[in-house]
Amino acid sequence: MIGEQAKKVAAHVDSARQWQLLMDVATYGARQDGGVDRPALSDHDVAARNHLVDWARARGLAVYQDDAANLFIRLEGRNPDLPPLLMGSHLDSQPTGGKFDGAYGVIAACEVLAAMQDAGIHPERPVEAVSWTNEEGSRFLPGATGSSAFAGSRDLADMRARQTVDGCHVGEEIDKVIAATRASRRPLAGAGAFAHLEAHIEQGPILEREKTRIGIVEGIQGVMRLRITIDGEAAHAGTTPHALRKDAVVAMAKVITALDPLTREAEDVLRLTFGRIEVQPNVPNTVPESAILTIDLRHPSAAEIERVYALIEEAAVRHAAPCSARVERISKVDPVSFPEHVLAAIQASAAALGEPARRMVSGAGHDSLHLARICPTGMVFVPCERGISHNPLEAASLDDLATGTRVLAATAMTILDSGKV
Amino acid sequence: MIGEQAKKVAAHVDSARQWQLLMDVATYGARQDGGVDRPALSDHDVAARNHLVDWARARGLAVYQDDAANLFIRLEGRNPDLPPLLMGSHLDSQPTGGKFDGAYGVIAACEVLAAMQDAGIHPERPVEAVSWTNEEGSRFLPGATGSSAFAGSRDLADMRARQTVDGCHVGEEIDKVIAATRASRRPLAGAGAFAHLEAHIEQGPILEREKTRIGIVEGIQGVMRLRITIDGEAAHAGTTPHALRKDAVVAMAKVITALDPLTREAEDVLRLTFGRIEVQPNVPNTVPESAILTIDLRHPSAAEIERVYALIEEAAVRHAAPCSARVERISKVDPVSFPEHVLAAIQASAAALGEPARRMVSGAGHDSLHLARICPTGMVFVPCERGISHNPLEAASLDDLATGTRVLAATAMTILDSGKV
Repeated sequence: MIGEQAKKVAAHVDSARQWQLLMDVATYGARQDGGVDRPALSDHDVAARNHLVDWARARGLAVYQDDAANLFIRLEGRNPDLPPLLMGSHLDSQPTGGKFDGAYGVIAACEVLAAMQDAGIHPERPVEAVSWTNEEGSRFLPGATGSSAFAGSRDLADMRARQTVDGCHVGEEIDKVIAATRASRRPLAGAGAFAHLEAHIEQGPILEREKTRIGIVEGIQGVMRLRITIDGEAAHAGTTPHALRKDAVVAMAKVITALDPLTREAEDVLRLTFGRIEVQPNVPNTVPESAILTIDLRHPSAAEIERVYALIEEAAVRHAAPCSARVERISKVDPVSFPEHVLAAIQASAAALGEPARRMVSGAGHDSLHLARICPTGMVFVPCERGISHNPLEAASLDDLATGTRVLAATAMTILDSGKV
Repeated sequence: MIGEQAKKVAAHVDSARQWQLLMDVATYGARQDGGVDRPALSDHDVAARNHLVDWARARGLAVYQDDAANLFIRLEGRNPDLPPLLMGSHLDSQPTGGKFDGAYGVIAACEVLAAMQDAGIHPERPVEAVSWTNEEGSRFLPGATGSSAFAGSRDLADMRARQTVDGCHVGEEIDKVIAATRASRRPLAGAGAFAHLEAHIEQGPILEREKTRIGIVEGIQGVMRLRITIDGEAAHAGTTPHALRKDAVVAMAKVITALDPLTREAEDVLRLTFGRIEVQPNVPNTVPESAILTIDLRHPSAAEIERVYALIEEAAVRHAAPCSARVERISKVDPVSFPEHVLAAIQASAAALGEPARRMVSGAGHDSLHLARICPTGMVFVPCERGISHNPLEAASLDDLATGTRVLAATAMTILDSGKV
């Protein structure tokens, strides 16, 4: 179901070349423990960008950057005025990050461009590999700065006015990076987008467990971040009878225990994580006065997130007694579904390459979340070791990464050929 | 059932004089918020000690200090060679402490000496008001340094070798305080002890709730401090199915919830406090890798503490699954029971003064815990507002404090008279 040219480009994907570029880029911000610490807009980020710029120039590819410091490596189309097919992810990492989260998607896109060149493909429309700025949001919020500015879902001027965690002005940092990166300027989103494809490690254990190399990402879960503040009363641990206590930690434990059955459904789709706890005064011999619990709630359905939110609110008040509980929403990102014809193109590509694939929902957010709002978008997942990511131990195999890139290449060619996107 | 002289001394307790001395001492280390921050062996501690020295000298009382920097104000006996009756508590406070915890017991003892003088009492044996060094243990561990060294339950040389939280050598700090305090030296525990009486605020809500001014302390609960370490597995909050998670916080919540019914017995004697929680990595979007829970467990019966410890160990392992749980004892102090004839003397004194009294167990540790190991010991509790202590809001009324001191005075006279102790 995919064309001969798609197969040809996939066949030109060079697993060793891709791995080498990944390892080269991983030297920028390399940690002693084998991980990567490459904050967005840092010197390491600039060095990684310029490494790709040199790589692109050596292959005769043009390089651009926009006002959000998104970096575009362009295989020119026969008709340069057509909106380009974009493939990308991000080069920034978590402070205790790995070599693959984000970087793999950018370098897979570069490898597809190289494979197209090697296969002698001259596409009608331009094809671009993109590095989107600050997906992680570790150095400054909000994350996905570059892709959300590009997609128009957030205002760049707003984001420029923020501060980084190390006390810098985001706008000045963006300007510095643009000045230090050897790429031509072009306007933000000026080129529009024909479609967006993103390859990424799964960051979960499912593909590895099922020995399936390709995940066809149907969409990205919605995320609600909420906070339960439980107020009790500090009291002496030795002298205060339990009947007179308002113990914030016991109340919190009951709330968590009461909510836990929500996660025991057979489908195991809901994600409910009690990741952060702050107790006051947090000393052994005082009955805790207050406990603040941060909850991360995810589901592919926005309606289901709202339904569970209501259950949490009710359970918090009921099970915290005699303490009081207050539930607040901190943030909410709606889920996104990728269009069926993009999923079909990925599925057909995997099938043509003889790779078993399974559909799945992304539990993590990605740049594609924002791109999906302005153009047909799809994601290809590959396995990572034990599902570990955001960790120096993050690992993926040369073969799995190459397989993902072959599917990415065939999908890109299929979408270019279909013309209908 | 108490003698005329006991009533006479009680009648000479001067509530205003006692309050004034308490307020004067509260100026050393006074906090802006009305509380007191007077670390053991600090300059404020020395100033408070010297205030009492001057007070004592002005009343013609001798003042001594021993090698543990315990301070003794002595009303000489007709037979100076007899072991003295001791009454005391401590002048050091918690960093966010109040005016009454400890200081009341020292000053009540001074007021009893003054009342004896005013009543023209010349006791056969010496009577001493004592300030024991570092009861709280906030600046350095272990607490009750002075009383435990005096009672021989801990080795002073050992404790001298420790560091304070502000990086000082405890032994040098003790030597500095002894040099700066205007009191004569005498050997540690050289004088022995005939008996020890301690007045203290209840630090709990029972007396106030029952509108009873006098608590006859039957003994001090045993305390076991223990730690449950729950090891799970860090994982991405968005991508990891619940069936594959080992969530340390959910496990901890189940352990706490499972143990909570232990505290619902009708007698409400057991004290079980989950005061301190440390979660790793404690960020909203990561399934918690580990949780460390510190438990404070108290009961008047050592056997019951062991029984509950076994239940905790069993529940931790059972309810933490699929995480692993490890339970460790951090420390243990056995309960102590005060002798019945001392309780009877307090009860008779309260009755003679027309004050309702109730027997109760102290939930907090006190210097009397150590003194009880070498001599007949008893404690008199008075109400404090809402049971609050270790807090700048700690409050007690002039009248309640004077009532406590009258009972202390009458008890001291009764025990002196009985001769039988």
